[in-house]
Amino acid sequence: MSGPARKPGALAVLSRREIYSGRVLRLEVDDVREPNGATGIREVVRHRGSVAALPVHEDGRVVLVRQWRHPIGTLMWELPAGLMNAGESPAEGAARELEEETGLRAARVEPIADFYTTPGFCDERMYVFRATGFTQVPPRPDDDEEIEVKTCSLHEAMEMMRAGEIREGKTLVALLLEAQRRAGAER
Amino acid sequence: MSGPARKPGALAVLSRREIYSGRVLRLEVDDVREPNGATGIREVVRHRGSVAALPVHEDGRVVLVRQWRHPIGTLMWELPAGLMNAGESPAEGAARELEEETGLRAARVEPIADFYTTPGFCDERMYVFRATGFTQVPPRPDDDEEIEVKTCSLHEAMEMMRAGEIREGKTLVALLLEAQRRAGAER
Repeated sequence: MSGPARKPGALAVLSRREIYSGRVLRLEVDDVREPNGATGIREVVRHRGSVAALPVHEDGRVVLVRQWRHPIGTLMWELPAGLMNAGESPAEGAARELEEETGLRAARVEPIADFYTTPGFCDERMYVFRATGFTQVPPRPDDDEEIEVKTCSLHEAMEMMRAGEIREGKTLVALLLEAQRRAGAER
Repeated sequence: MSGPARKPGALAVLSRREIYSGRVLRLEVDDVREPNGATGIREVVRHRGSVAALPVHEDGRVVLVRQWRHPIGTLMWELPAGLMNAGESPAEGAARELEEETGLRAARVEPIADFYTTPGFCDERMYVFRATGFTQVPPRPDDDEEIEVKTCSLHEAMEMMRAGEIREGKTLVALLLEAQRRAGAER
């Protein structure tokens, strides 16, 4: 018996049901065959992808936004971020979200991270950029966004992280990368 | 008019529909009223929470596992991790997942991060621990897990990160925290 080699661990999809297709996500349930031959199901949340920007001022200060996160039922400090729009690149999306939420129009956005937020059940991909070189324009938040903007030193942001006041994945990744970058620049 | 002050940005939930309730997640769609009075919907994925461990050997080497991620359709290098079980603490869950996936029984697990993976549409909370002091026992992966274990220096793990071979949120957070911890210890 020949044929394409099975990728190690790959599941065979026997059938797929779409349970829901909505505004920001789609839910599918796959009937699968495991590598060991057993059958089971996999619940998969399909997502169109997200973009975020870590804005860094010339003096090194960073910018965070606080908004209500309905699934958690609380306000959270995070990077300016949002969903990717059709037809735009991740860099364009990150610059757009940054400008809409904070009024900061960035001359430069540089990719710093590209990862999956929770690949066990969801395909959301997160593109994170470092944004610099700002012109201030009026922010244009979406109708459903009430956003507080905070500009602070990286040190203060790291203290917020340690104190549990920043607790969202992409924001931790971006702040830790920025701290590492500056530690490297010091040497 | 008096009454409890509205939390800034909080949405009023007018009604809630459960769309799906399954193995690892539940999907709800809420009809909400925005702070500006407009009505809309919010899609919310409910999740029971996740635990992960960064295993660190006495010589500083770290341990990663590679497994198939069905939503992405690829193998991914990540921290040993899994879902929280009912009745166990996050620390117990992280130690259990570590032992099941790698056979490393940890004498100590210390909390290093506690965050939400993607709070825009999902309430999944991720508890990350640093595990040390190992006894090797036989691994006991779940029937549906085919897991490759890799032990490498932190430097090599950071190189994998920079090369895009590690691209999953909790793993980036844990490795960056570990690098920061060691940079601090050097001073």
